[in-house]
Amino acid sequence: MDLKQIYRDYIDCLNERAWSHLGTFVADYVTHNDNPLGLSGYRKMLEQDYAGIPDLRFNVELMISEYPNLGSRLRFDCSPTGVFLGLPVNGRRVSLHENVFYEFDNNKIVRVRSIIDKAALEAQL
Amino acid sequence: MDLKQIYRDYIDCLNERAWSHLGTFVADYVTHNDNPLGLSGYRKMLEQDYAGIPDLRFNVELMISEYPNLGSRLRFDCSPTGVFLGLPVNGRRVSLHENVFYEFDNNKIVRVRSIIDKAALEAQL
Repeated sequence: MDLKQIYRDYIDCLNERAWSHLGTFVADYVTHNDNPLGLSGYRKMLEQDYAGIPDLRFNVELMISEYPNLGSRLRFDCSPTGVFLGLPVNGRRVSLHENVFYEFDNNKIVRVRSIIDKAALEAQL
Repeated sequence: MDLKQIYRDYIDCLNERAWSHLGTFVADYVTHNDNPLGLSGYRKMLEQDYAGIPDLRFNVELMISEYPNLGSRLRFDCSPTGVFLGLPVNGRRVSLHENVFYEFDNNKIVRVRSIIDKAALEAQL
């Protein structure tokens, strides 16, 4: 199956906060930066992200796919309400990027290796 | 041409500090995180990296290629001598990752979009 189409649907799922569908895209045993979150922990992480960033929206700037991996550069224009990545953003409008690699198995994400551009965020505060 | 092979040769060039060969892999008008460094500015950036991190070595953990783009997850086990990414590393041995996307034109890198995991570095200090 086309990983890019799966990924686009996954991003739609996040932007719609359609948590009950998350398991369609994310495997039960998913890891995030080597942390064995599992699907429930992954969902909790995303729910916490949205709780702290009510206007969070995932924008895909770049997608590179080579089975079984997909790389993506995401852009966020958002206003974290309090402390984000250890920084006192306190509702300011900021723009930041995430470069992230996903490994798929059986059409589901099993491994996420993500870096958020904290240095660029700091420069905006 | 195979972007992965070009990229492996580029990484060898960096690890050998073969700066006179950098123009084989990097275009004159290269940009780095939207900064129009050009080849000379790019070389200067790398030389400064090596000056501040004498034991710097690029290790490719993951490569994803889809023409004209390539994504890479790099790992560094190194000892920055002073302040690195604004943090007082002061010679400590640290491990960090960079997730980076390259765009190629005419077999040369024309655009680099890089994020280094500063948060993970902070956690080690």
